Amino acid sequence: MATRRNPLDEPATALAERFAATRALTRELAAPLSDADATIQPFPDASPAKWHMAHTSWFFETFVLRDHVAGYRAFDDRFAYLFNSYYDGEGARHDRPKRGMISRPTLDEVRAYRAHVDAAVIDAFGSLGPAALELVEIGINHEQQHQELFLTDILATLAENPTNPVYAKADAAPCHAPEPLSFLPGRTGIVEIGANGGGFAFDSETPRHRTILHPHAIASRPVTNGEWRDFINDGGYEKPSLWLSEGWDWVNREAVHAPLYWRGEGLAFTLAGVVDLDPAAPVAHVSYYEADAFARWAGARLPTEAEWEDFAASADPNIGNQLDRAEAVMPKAPGDIFGDVWEWTQSAFAAYPGFVPAEGTVGEYNGKFMCGQFVLKGASCATPRGHSRATYRNFFPPHARWQFTGLRLARDS
Amino acid sequence: MATRRNPLDEPATALAERFAATRALTRELAAPLSDADATIQPFPDASPAKWHMAHTSWFFETFVLRDHVAGYRAFDDRFAYLFNSYYDGEGARHDRPKRGMISRPTLDEVRAYRAHVDAAVIDAFGSLGPAALELVEIGINHEQQHQELFLTDILATLAENPTNPVYAKADAAPCHAPEPLSFLPGRTGIVEIGANGGGFAFDSETPRHRTILHPHAIASRPVTNGEWRDFINDGGYEKPSLWLSEGWDWVNREAVHAPLYWRGEGLAFTLAGVVDLDPAAPVAHVSYYEADAFARWAGARLPTEAEWEDFAASADPNIGNQLDRAEAVMPKAPGDIFGDVWEWTQSAFAAYPGFVPAEGTVGEYNGKFMCGQFVLKGASCATPRGHSRATYRNFFPPHARWQFTGLRLARDS
Amino acid sequence: MATRRNPLDEPATALAERFAATRALTRELAAPLSDADATIQPFPDASPAKWHMAHTSWFFETFVLRDHVAGYRAFDDRFAYLFNSYYDGEGARHDRPKRGMISRPTLDEVRAYRAHVDAAVIDAFGSLGPAALELVEIGINHEQQHQELFLTDILATLAENPTNPVYAKADAAPCHAPEPLSFLPGRTGIVEIGANGGGFAFDSETPRHRTILHPHAIASRPVTNGEWRDFINDGGYEKPSLWLSEGWDWVNREAVHAPLYWRGEGLAFTLAGVVDLDPAAPVAHVSYYEADAFARWAGARLPTEAEWEDFAASADPNIGNQLDRAEAVMPKAPGDIFGDVWEWTQSAFAAYPGFVPAEGTVGEYNGKFMCGQFVLKGASCATPRGHSRATYRNFFPPHARWQFTGLRLARDS
Amino acid sequence: MATRRNPLDEPATALAERFAATRALTRELAAPLSDADATIQPFPDASPAKWHMAHTSWFFETFVLRDHVAGYRAFDDRFAYLFNSYYDGEGARHDRPKRGMISRPTLDEVRAYRAHVDAAVIDAFGSLGPAALELVEIGINHEQQHQELFLTDILATLAENPTNPVYAKADAAPCHAPEPLSFLPGRTGIVEIGANGGGFAFDSETPRHRTILHPHAIASRPVTNGEWRDFINDGGYEKPSLWLSEGWDWVNREAVHAPLYWRGEGLAFTLAGVVDLDPAAPVAHVSYYEADAFARWAGARLPTEAEWEDFAASADPNIGNQLDRAEAVMPKAPGDIFGDVWEWTQSAFAAYPGFVPAEGTVGEYNGKFMCGQFVLKGASCATPRGHSRATYRNFFPPHARWQFTGLRLARDS
Repeated sequence: MATRRNPLDEPATALAERFAATRALTRELAAPLSDADATIQPFPDASPAKWHMAHTSWFFETFVLRDHVAGYRAFDDRFAYLFNSYYDGEGARHDRPKRGMISRPTLDEVRAYRAHVDAAVIDAFGSLGPAALELVEIGINHEQQHQELFLTDILATLAENPTNPVYAKADAAPCHAPEPLSFLPGRTGIVEIGANGGGFAFDSETPRHRTILHPHAIASRPVTNGEWRDFINDGGYEKPSLWLSEGWDWVNREAVHAPLYWRGEGLAFTLAGVVDLDPAAPVAHVSYYEADAFARWAGARLPTEAEWEDFAASADPNIGNQLDRAEAVMPKAPGDIFGDVWEWTQSAFAAYPGFVPAEGTVGEYNGKFMCGQFVLKGASCATPRGHSRATYRNFFPPHARWQFTGLRLARDS
Repeated sequence: MATRRNPLDEPATALAERFAATRALTRELAAPLSDADATIQPFPDASPAKWHMAHTSWFFETFVLRDHVAGYRAFDDRFAYLFNSYYDGEGARHDRPKRGMISRPTLDEVRAYRAHVDAAVIDAFGSLGPAALELVEIGINHEQQHQELFLTDILATLAENPTNPVYAKADAAPCHAPEPLSFLPGRTGIVEIGANGGGFAFDSETPRHRTILHPHAIASRPVTNGEWRDFINDGGYEKPSLWLSEGWDWVNREAVHAPLYWRGEGLAFTLAGVVDLDPAAPVAHVSYYEADAFARWAGARLPTEAEWEDFAASADPNIGNQLDRAEAVMPKAPGDIFGDVWEWTQSAFAAYPGFVPAEGTVGEYNGKFMCGQFVLKGASCATPRGHSRATYRNFFPPHARWQFTGLRLARDS
Repeated sequence: MATRRNPLDEPATALAERFAATRALTRELAAPLSDADATIQPFPDASPAKWHMAHTSWFFETFVLRDHVAGYRAFDDRFAYLFNSYYDGEGARHDRPKRGMISRPTLDEVRAYRAHVDAAVIDAFGSLGPAALELVEIGINHEQQHQELFLTDILATLAENPTNPVYAKADAAPCHAPEPLSFLPGRTGIVEIGANGGGFAFDSETPRHRTILHPHAIASRPVTNGEWRDFINDGGYEKPSLWLSEGWDWVNREAVHAPLYWRGEGLAFTLAGVVDLDPAAPVAHVSYYEADAFARWAGARLPTEAEWEDFAASADPNIGNQLDRAEAVMPKAPGDIFGDVWEWTQSAFAAYPGFVPAEGTVGEYNGKFMCGQFVLKGASCATPRGHSRATYRNFFPPHARWQFTGLRLARDS
Repeated sequence: MATRRNPLDEPATALAERFAATRALTRELAAPLSDADATIQPFPDASPAKWHMAHTSWFFETFVLRDHVAGYRAFDDRFAYLFNSYYDGEGARHDRPKRGMISRPTLDEVRAYRAHVDAAVIDAFGSLGPAALELVEIGINHEQQHQELFLTDILATLAENPTNPVYAKADAAPCHAPEPLSFLPGRTGIVEIGANGGGFAFDSETPRHRTILHPHAIASRPVTNGEWRDFINDGGYEKPSLWLSEGWDWVNREAVHAPLYWRGEGLAFTLAGVVDLDPAAPVAHVSYYEADAFARWAGARLPTEAEWEDFAASADPNIGNQLDRAEAVMPKAPGDIFGDVWEWTQSAFAAYPGFVPAEGTVGEYNGKFMCGQFVLKGASCATPRGHSRATYRNFFPPHARWQFTGLRLARDS
């Protein structure tokens, strides 16, 4: 699942601090929620907030505490069944579409579970060997992924409520004129992409390898809400020639005519409730189908993963509109490379040449999803700062749009 | 919806007391629940506890306070949309299958809503005219129906949780030998059935009318868990010749092989958690399909509604295992005519000769369900005591079995 | 399945003649069809014409020839699997929704199968005992039922073809002014309904028994196309208050806004292709939901089965617009009691008091459908003349409307 | 849709001959079929034989005759609606899942349609300009694709018939010992793939471009039936660790436990009816999910498209077990590079760098399917000889397996 981690890279105390900070952030994210808020599963592919909180704890409890800490006793033997996600190697588990049926354990019990696991991990830190420390590192990254899902799933949950509940208040966004769009020439010829072993990476980012870039240019910023409105006004959702065959079926079957959460009349539902859409902010909550259709309408195309990664290779992934604390995150003008929205690429999520999945149960993490998914690059406003890098490979099926998903155009040159 | 109510029948103070008692019982039923428990909708035909609590309040608020109390202001204007059930005359409403998405209002806010409505109704009582008082009477009966659904829906909710949560503790049931079964001859010839105007009744119970009973006998007690186990052991769920065509499809499609909530090895899930099945207690949670197949297997048949009603006409409907307080109700040996389980009849729910639906929006109550449903008679352990009478016509579609539904055999003679 | 038949009632030669005539009519009905026409299954509840032809032959082959004629050899051993309909007692069978996959045997092979069975039955006639003769009688009635389904299923098949194929040409219907509607008083008090044993009847028509008619009146003729157009123009399909709850769901889910086969602008698809609707002819192809909604709109109701049967008891069931030969049958003004359209009643299809299903496999015929179906009375333009009687109980689920189904109003008085 | 075709490459008479030969082969393929055989649609993604015959004719009629031959009159104006496949630019069309409802036009009428179009095209040949000739070329290739679908759809149709009909007789296959499997080293470094403009190619094969091959080896022959039996016997269908997540869901949902058409006990259904499986012949009718799981089980992987194409670049695509005449084609030992089975690659079907879809309605051909599909390379026993080339990109969704789809292993080295 992860490249070998050199234990000398980082002192265990620094890792312990990152562990504590990550666990604390999840705790904060849950602060505005009631037990009921945290129990609802808005649709089968999303999970209740409580489930995210427990599942990330189960990960540490199982792979670090159970496997590497002698004498550790599980907080509750029933949790393995309830909070395993999809690790077949870990035995039977609760049906995914039934996650919203679990009012008990309560949110407070889940908080106690988290505290119990935190204490045990911190307690054990001094005695953990390199393999266990690597699993802590994986667990931190795993929890960061779930922090993003936590927010997007809560957004989906609250969006189902006709009373438009507010997760957190937001300051009025300052008004920006949209930045003019330009296309920047990309590199051509042989380049290297993928993780080089210099820091943490998921198995799917490896091995670093050579690939060829063909002549192309890439947009200076993501597509904005204002541009998307032009697409709608030009009949973008009504012209089959703009759409992939499967996308056109989806548009008609689901009666899609705008990004998810757009509420008409320039409004959108957000973690801050219903707000005015900022025309200069990056458009979010569009599916691959929509992103692809928009690009065709715009006389452009989506970038490939390699084009995007090479484009972003020298950017600092820690800068930009990313998640720092529990607040009503949303994309903001002018739009960053890392931050605001994940950017769809035209590349299917597939194994890199020479890819070898991580061993053991955690190896189920990425390889088994290499079918029917597209790669998204960058980071969003809901991605915990520090989690991003140019080699990162996020992936979702082409109809998914409850994440903060947007796009950046590219074209041949 | 209801027979004309003579305001002289009962002083307004007595009605006010019944109103208060009914409202209090709902409050008590909710006491063991968390906000999360009360938010879950276990399947589209069931509703969250919180919804039942709010919807019954909306009924009083709309039909009594809004329509009959000058100057009443709604507690929250958004609730009409959220908590209308199916009254098309009252405008748009929240989609039924989405009732489990409503974490807000919280349980405490719904309690405050109830208190607000209670105070306003009590306050207005002295000045309510006969039409409004009749609506209070209807509202009480309506809330009693929802008290039963409250319990059966909570049972369904908790049953989805692999940790087998307990709604309330139950005393160990005393051990009974099952009562011997006998068949009692029923009356033959012209009899009268239906409500005679002597007390509250729903519109579908009227008018009282003559019908003919043909020679028959009716069982002295309901079918028991022990008898149902014999049916299973004799291959009852595997012989198509015992089943209605539609029932056989249902058994196979849903992989049914025992009553709902049976957990194997003599155990069943109940409001008290997993308990031993009492072989002498009436079987519950069987569908019409199952009841009909069992009767055929037993060489008998289900009674008609008229046979059942005539059989029970002289029994006291206030005696028996019915709902008095918030506890882990369940059917108990030896089984009462009124109480323990609703008893399936072979009669489709249809209009009585001369039936006229009640006027106005409340008239949507019964007539629009006269299709695809079968009549159940009696009362169950979850029916509030005082709600029952021989003329009562409960109804459910033939596959439904999350209510406390059982059966009593009959046969031609 | 059938009342005992007295072999003295009818000489075997007369029965043989009826057998031959019935078999010949099916042959004629198939004459206008190609093998491909006869192979298509337009939806899972309908069957290919070829299947009807083979299944009715399988019935005689199995229950008469195999069981009562020594030494009979099956025409093709594979046909029992292919052409059994729903007789569980007769073993495994081909999945109903897959009946349209059977291009082989060809139509000509099925014709050869029919000829083979016909010859064997005729050959054996002299030596058949009373039990076998009764099965021949049942088989004739069974085939007559399938003749009606043959035509309605072919109508459904051709209706799926955008080129509007013609089964048979029709003469232009003479123009009638619609007959004025009047309500005739029905009898009140105790009457008898059900088959009295004087001729063939299906088991579900027995036993004849007493029932009570309450004061009512019944319409002098069926509802017409013109009246249905008024219902549509008055917004009948858009007012939830007119509809059963289940019916309203159906209307919206299926986007129903007119009888099946209406094509707009006063046209309808028929066995003669697209023709002008005759406003004076009985409306056909309406579901129970629609019939019930129309009656409510008209300030009336549907008759009960007993009301209808008593009303029609003295009419001659052999008169009227019924099936005599292979032609483009359709309802015609002014509308007959027997003929034109089956008339929905408000009565669920249920067992008569004292009902005992016929013994053996043929006993699966009716009893297993006593759930979720409504009774239709009379006969339609596709019912073979001679098949009808006042006690006849046709039944379909409330959404079905590919039969020639219409309605006659009734009301309390 | 196609690379520019140089009219000097081939004299018009040679093209006319190829046109005539292609059209004749379709005619021959239909010879063993009845009208009913040719009318059935076995499932929504497959089409009736008659539809293939008419649709390929509609293609020539529309894009060549209508657009390029002055005064041409359509054979039947209704056919454009019935026989358009998915060209949105050509207007409304018959619903795909309803193609099996079209008994009329008859098979003979469709044959007449074909003859009419053939005569008109041949007649016009001398006067067709380069654009029209290119469309003839495209139409020939288009019809060749439908010839393969014709056979696989007929196989699917006959497979639904419990009587196991035979499309054509087959000679007993000679017995082969399976060829020993070896892995051949592939080229490493920069290679070119894609069509170079030297002959006909579909737009998706262009432009030819450079790509990088990483160290790998590729199997000397396809996976055989015998090897697949080992996979089954080793529990291949029961171990989730072997499967993609989506594949595991598919296996369980569809209860898959062998290749499609395997009938147990070493038998399989084929165009020659039920036959013994040849353990040395290439396995066919496996999905991408199955192919991927098998490769994982075998400690190998599927090749990338580029690896496969480079491997096959020097092979003669006209040699091998491909379609020459109407017969019971099936994969045979020892298995050819071109022929026997299409070979799944791990590459998603996506645009090549610089890809530009063909202009006009025919441009809807390939680009709109670049989502959710995997590339298959080579050719099968049902591919018309002459249609294949190394650059060819066949594609299907990962669950599809009614084509002759197999696999060849690869591995990193």
